[in-house]
Amino acid sequence: MVKVGIIGGTGYTGIELLRLLANHSQAEVTVLTSRSEAGKKVSDYFPNLSPAYPSLAFSEPSVENLAQCDVVFFATPHGVAHSLAGELMATGVKIIDLSADFRIKDIAVWEEWYGQKHAAPELIDQAVYGLPEVNREAIKKAQLVAVPGCYPTAVQLGLLPLFTNKLAVTSGLIADCKSGVSGAGRAAKLGSLYCEAGENFKAYSVGVHRHQPEIVQGLSLAAGEEVNLTFVPHLVPMQRGIFASLYVELNAAGKKLNLDELHALYADFYDKESFVELLENNSYPETRSIKGSNMCKIALHLPAGSPRLIVLAAIDNLVKGASGQAVQNMNLMFGFNESEGLSQIGLAP
Amino acid sequence: MVKVGIIGGTGYTGIELLRLLANHSQAEVTVLTSRSEAGKKVSDYFPNLSPAYPSLAFSEPSVENLAQCDVVFFATPHGVAHSLAGELMATGVKIIDLSADFRIKDIAVWEEWYGQKHAAPELIDQAVYGLPEVNREAIKKAQLVAVPGCYPTAVQLGLLPLFTNKLAVTSGLIADCKSGVSGAGRAAKLGSLYCEAGENFKAYSVGVHRHQPEIVQGLSLAAGEEVNLTFVPHLVPMQRGIFASLYVELNAAGKKLNLDELHALYADFYDKESFVELLENNSYPETRSIKGSNMCKIALHLPAGSPRLIVLAAIDNLVKGASGQAVQNMNLMFGFNESEGLSQIGLAP
Amino acid sequence: MVKVGIIGGTGYTGIELLRLLANHSQAEVTVLTSRSEAGKKVSDYFPNLSPAYPSLAFSEPSVENLAQCDVVFFATPHGVAHSLAGELMATGVKIIDLSADFRIKDIAVWEEWYGQKHAAPELIDQAVYGLPEVNREAIKKAQLVAVPGCYPTAVQLGLLPLFTNKLAVTSGLIADCKSGVSGAGRAAKLGSLYCEAGENFKAYSVGVHRHQPEIVQGLSLAAGEEVNLTFVPHLVPMQRGIFASLYVELNAAGKKLNLDELHALYADFYDKESFVELLENNSYPETRSIKGSNMCKIALHLPAGSPRLIVLAAIDNLVKGASGQAVQNMNLMFGFNESEGLSQIGLAP
Amino acid sequence: MVKVGIIGGTGYTGIELLRLLANHSQAEVTVLTSRSEAGKKVSDYFPNLSPAYPSLAFSEPSVENLAQCDVVFFATPHGVAHSLAGELMATGVKIIDLSADFRIKDIAVWEEWYGQKHAAPELIDQAVYGLPEVNREAIKKAQLVAVPGCYPTAVQLGLLPLFTNKLAVTSGLIADCKSGVSGAGRAAKLGSLYCEAGENFKAYSVGVHRHQPEIVQGLSLAAGEEVNLTFVPHLVPMQRGIFASLYVELNAAGKKLNLDELHALYADFYDKESFVELLENNSYPETRSIKGSNMCKIALHLPAGSPRLIVLAAIDNLVKGASGQAVQNMNLMFGFNESEGLSQIGLAP
Repeated sequence: MVKVGIIGGTGYTGIELLRLLANHSQAEVTVLTSRSEAGKKVSDYFPNLSPAYPSLAFSEPSVENLAQCDVVFFATPHGVAHSLAGELMATGVKIIDLSADFRIKDIAVWEEWYGQKHAAPELIDQAVYGLPEVNREAIKKAQLVAVPGCYPTAVQLGLLPLFTNKLAVTSGLIADCKSGVSGAGRAAKLGSLYCEAGENFKAYSVGVHRHQPEIVQGLSLAAGEEVNLTFVPHLVPMQRGIFASLYVELNAAGKKLNLDELHALYADFYDKESFVELLENNSYPETRSIKGSNMCKIALHLPAGSPRLIVLAAIDNLVKGASGQAVQNMNLMFGFNESEGLSQIGLAP
Repeated sequence: MVKVGIIGGTGYTGIELLRLLANHSQAEVTVLTSRSEAGKKVSDYFPNLSPAYPSLAFSEPSVENLAQCDVVFFATPHGVAHSLAGELMATGVKIIDLSADFRIKDIAVWEEWYGQKHAAPELIDQAVYGLPEVNREAIKKAQLVAVPGCYPTAVQLGLLPLFTNKLAVTSGLIADCKSGVSGAGRAAKLGSLYCEAGENFKAYSVGVHRHQPEIVQGLSLAAGEEVNLTFVPHLVPMQRGIFASLYVELNAAGKKLNLDELHALYADFYDKESFVELLENNSYPETRSIKGSNMCKIALHLPAGSPRLIVLAAIDNLVKGASGQAVQNMNLMFGFNESEGLSQIGLAP
Repeated sequence: MVKVGIIGGTGYTGIELLRLLANHSQAEVTVLTSRSEAGKKVSDYFPNLSPAYPSLAFSEPSVENLAQCDVVFFATPHGVAHSLAGELMATGVKIIDLSADFRIKDIAVWEEWYGQKHAAPELIDQAVYGLPEVNREAIKKAQLVAVPGCYPTAVQLGLLPLFTNKLAVTSGLIADCKSGVSGAGRAAKLGSLYCEAGENFKAYSVGVHRHQPEIVQGLSLAAGEEVNLTFVPHLVPMQRGIFASLYVELNAAGKKLNLDELHALYADFYDKESFVELLENNSYPETRSIKGSNMCKIALHLPAGSPRLIVLAAIDNLVKGASGQAVQNMNLMFGFNESEGLSQIGLAP
Repeated sequence: MVKVGIIGGTGYTGIELLRLLANHSQAEVTVLTSRSEAGKKVSDYFPNLSPAYPSLAFSEPSVENLAQCDVVFFATPHGVAHSLAGELMATGVKIIDLSADFRIKDIAVWEEWYGQKHAAPELIDQAVYGLPEVNREAIKKAQLVAVPGCYPTAVQLGLLPLFTNKLAVTSGLIADCKSGVSGAGRAAKLGSLYCEAGENFKAYSVGVHRHQPEIVQGLSLAAGEEVNLTFVPHLVPMQRGIFASLYVELNAAGKKLNLDELHALYADFYDKESFVELLENNSYPETRSIKGSNMCKIALHLPAGSPRLIVLAAIDNLVKGASGQAVQNMNLMFGFNESEGLSQIGLAP
C-alpha cells in the first residue's frame, strides 16, 4: 500500500481526495494535515467520510511526518507548495500539487498573474503538467506533478485534438465557461453564500482569471504557436461542474473536414482514454451526468451557416478538474491501473 | 380603467401578467381564460395572487367576453393568436401577443422555423414588434403588438447600439445565452423536473432554437444588412433570468473607439430608457438583481488583447423578457406612463 | 413624507426595508448607516435597488444625522439598539427595532439566552412587542417597537387563536419549524455557503435557539399560563421562507369543537387582518406563494385518529418575519394605511 | 456472478440500482426491462451510466428473459409486482420488490390505502419485510423481499430501539418528515417541476400518505401493541434525502434512563450494523453527508424541560430508502458480504 499524505485537507479538493482514496485498493491516507484543525477527527469535520475514516485525524504539517509518505498531495492555496515541495522531494517523496504553483512554465507569466514572487523556480523544470491525455509518459516518471486547473482541463480536452492537428485558427478563440460554486473553494466568502450565489447567474473575472495563461500555455504548446484566447468564466448556481462552450474557427485544413470527419479525428485522439467520452455529434453533455465522476464528456456542433465549430465539454470541477485527476496522476506515477479508485459513476440525480 | 383580458392564464407569463397588473393604477383584469381551468378561482390555482384577486376566476375563452375588454394579452403557445387575433381586432380590441405568432415579418421564415402554416398572414403588416427601445412611436399607434422573445430581448438590447451605429462586423457574431428553467414554460416536461434541471448545466437547441431568426431579423434591421449569428442557449438551474454573453467584432469604425467611448455611445443610446441600465465598464450584471423587475442591465468588457468586445446583458425572462415588456407595451398603446405598474424592485435574495 | 433612518443597512433585513420603502407613498429613506460601507452608494452595494435609490449612500451612524429622522429602524445585531435607542428617543425619534433587544420583557430571561448584560433595562417598559395582530392599539401609541423574530411570528400567528381562547393544553406543544438560509443573515459563515447549505436538510439549535423564550412569552401571555414548548428549527435549502408545523393538543373545551368550528374560530380571530390568510381546512400553504410578500398563510389539519391538531403556517422570514412587519408597525405608528407599501404579491416562481 | 434483472429501469430507483450494481463484484445486470424504452441503450437514457454499461439496452419485459436471472428487482409502480412475482418465483427466481406491493401484511389495510384489490394475496406470507436491521435472518432465507419505503426506513430505524425495548408511549407519536423531490419519482408531474418545487417548502398528504400504515405496522410489531402515529411529510427543495424529526414520549421505564443511557441502548441495538451510524447526543445529522450512500445517521436530543425525546434520522431516500437497501437485501439473500457494492461515501458537496 502506498502511503499518502494530504496537506490542507479542509477544503473541497481535500475532502474529494479522501472520498476517492477510500475506495482505492493500493493507497492509504496516513497523514492529513491542517494547521487550524489539528487534533480533530476528519469524520467530525466531514461527516460523510465517517464510514471510511473512523479514526483518521488532522495533524500539524511537518516535514518529518510527511516524509514518511510515499506521495504527498498539496490541496492548498497557491504559494504553499512552493515553500514545502522541495524539502519533501529531497526525502524522496513524490509530490502531486493541486494548486497553481507549478503549472506555468514561464516564471514571469506566473509572477504577473499571481502577483507574487515565484518561490521555487528551481523546481519548474522537473514539474510535469499533469494532464494524462497529453503527458502520460512524462507523468509516469515524474516526481513532481502540477495538476491542471478545472477550467484548463475542460478547455484543453475540448480543443487539443484540433490544435494538435493544426486544424484551427489560433486567433479569435472564445471559451465561454461556466462553473459550479465549489470552484470558489470552501472559504467563507460573501459571494459564495447560498443567498448570494443561489438563483443567480453572472460572469466574473473577465480578462483577469488566473486560468487564462494556463489555458493559453497548453493550447499554444499543442498548436506550435501562440493562441489568442477570449476566456469568460461564469458562476452557475450548482455545487459541482464545469461546462465549457468553445467557439473555434477552423483553418483551411480544418474546413476541409466535415463534422463526421472531425468526430472521427476526436475519436481517434481519445481512443485509448478512459476518462474522455466523445458523444455523438450534435448531442449535449450535461454536468449532472459526471457529478462525482472523473469523466470528461465532449460533443461537437457545427450549425448550418456557422463560421465556427462549437465544442461542448463537461467535467466535475472537483474530480477530473482537481482531485480525481490528481489520483489519476498518482496511479500513473506508481504504475497502478490508471482507473484505480476512479470507477465512481456520476450521481444522478 | 382599461379592461384587460388574458388568454391562457395558467402559464408563467400569465401569472406574471396578473402579478404586475395587480399594482397597475389604470388597468384591471376583467377576463381571464383557460379552457382547462374554467370556473376555478385564479387564487386557488396560483395562491400567491390571493390578496390581489380574491374572486377572479378563469372562464372559457369566447370572442364575446374578450371583446368587452380594451386590450387582450395572448399568453398562449404559438398558433393560438393567429386564429383569434383578427376576430378580436375587428371589434376594436387591442392585442398584445406574448407568443411568437407575429414576431417574424418574413412568412416563409416563420413557417420554416415553426413548422406550420402561418394562419394570419394578413395581419403581419399591422403587427408592431414590441421592443419599446426601438419601436416606441410605432407601438403607441399599434393595434397589434408582438412582444419579443426573452433571448431576443436580451441580445438585441445588448447589441443594438453597436449595429445601429454601424460599428460592428455583421458576420461571426456569437451569442452564448443562458436561461432559467421558467423559460421552458409550465408544462410538465421531464427535462424541467427539479431532479433533472437542478444541479445541472447544459446547452440545448444549438442551431435550431426558434429565437435565432427573431434575433437575426432585429439585428439585421438595425445593421442594414444580414447579420450572421451563432446562438447557443443553455439551461441554468435557477427559476428566472436570462444572461447573454455577446462576443462581437468591431469593424474599422468601431475599433476607433475605446471602451469609454463605446460606453458613452451606449449611454447616449439608452439615455431616456427607464428599463435599460448601463453599468460601468468592466462590471458584472447579475440576474438576481433584476429578479421580478423589468430592468435590463448591461455592461461592456474589452479585455487586453481580445479581438472582440464582450457585452453582458441580464434580464428577467418572465418580466422584461415577457410579461413586464407586455405591460410596458400596453402603457405605450394607451398613453399611460411607460413605467406604470412596473416599479417592482428586484427581489434579492 | 416621513423621514426614515436605517441603521445597519447591509444585511438582508436592511435591503428588504429599502425594497419595501421604495414603494411607500408616505415615507422616504433619508439616512442609511453602515460603519463599514460609509460613503458607498447603496445601489453599488445592492444593485437591485438602483432604480429606486440612484444616489442614496451609506453614512457613518451618528445621533445628529439620525435625530433628523422621524423614525429609525435598527437592522442590527442584538446589543446595538440597547446602546443607541435611548439617546435617539430623547430627541423624539420613533424606534422600530428589528433585533431582539427589546422583545423579552423579563430581563433575566433575556440575559440568560443572549449571554450578556441587558444595557437598556429602563426602556423595556415602553417597548411594545410589534405583532400587530395582538398589539395593534399599543403599537399606534408606541415610541419604541420591538419587531418579533421570524419563527415567533409564524408560530404565534399559527397558535394565538387557540391559546387566546383557552382551547389548547399548554404542555407538550411541538413546533417543528423550517427556515430558508437568509434567516442566518448575510454574514460570511461556512454553514451558509451554497456548497454547505444547498442540497441539504438538517435540524439545528435544538433546545437552545433564542426564539424559544420569545415564543414562550407570547403564547404564555395569550394562554394566561406558562406554555411548555418543544421547538426544533431546521435549515431548508431555499433563500426565503419560514414554515411552521405545529402540533398542539386540544383541551377539553377544544375537543368539543370539530375542525370546521376551529376554522370558524380562526377565521373570526383574523377577520380584519390584512396579512393573515386562513386557507381552507386540509389545504397546504407553501412558502413560495408568499415569497417577497407580507402575508402569513395558515391551514388546519386534524387527521383521523390524531390526538393533536396540526397547524401549518408559512411566512417570508424577511418580510412578515422582519422588514415587512417592521413597515407594518411604522404604518400603525404614523397613522398610515396599515398596508401602505406592502402590496407586493408573492413572486412565483 | 449472480445474474440480475431489473423491471422498470427508467425511474430514479432503477438508475440507482444500476449505479450501485456497477461496482458490485458478484452481480451483473443482464436484463433491464422497460416497455416504453425497449431497444434503447441505457447509457443513452441515463448518460451517467455510460462508463459502466456501454452496451446494456432496455428490453420488453418477458417471463422467459427474466427467468434466466437469479434475482429480479421490481423498480415499478405498485401493482406490477403483484401480477408478475408469482410467475417468476415459480421458476426459482428470487424477487426483491421496491414497490409497496408486499410491504403490508394485512390485506384489508393494503387495499384501503392503495385503493385497489390486492392481486397476489397468496404471496404475502412468504414476503419478508426487507429491513435488515430487523429481519436479517428471515431475509437470508427469503425468496420474496419487500423493500421498505423511504419514510418507513428512516422512522423505524430512528425508533426501533425504543419500541423494541418497551421504553416509549405508543400513543401520541409524531413523525415530522421531510423528503427531497426525487421521492416523488421521475414522472413528469407539475408539482415536481424545478419552478414549482424549487425555492419552496410545504407539507403534503397529511393523514393520507401511504407510508403511514407501513410505519405503524413496523413500530407496532416492535412495541407489541398498536402505535398511534401522527405522520406529516414535507417536500424539501433538494434532490435526495429523507430527514425525520421524531417526537416520542418515554414511558415510565424510558424516563428512568438519562440521555447517555438512551444513547448506550441505541449503540447496543445498532452495534453490529454497517449502515446505521449513531452520532453523539445533541449532534445534527445532515442529509448531505449521506448523499449517494447507504448510511442512516441518527442522533438523540432531550432539551431541558422537554417532555419528549427527539430523534433525528437522515437517509438518502434513493439508497438506504430504496435501491441501496435493495442491494443490501440481495447481499443477504445470496450470502454475500452485506456491504458489497455499498461502500460509496456520501458525495459532499
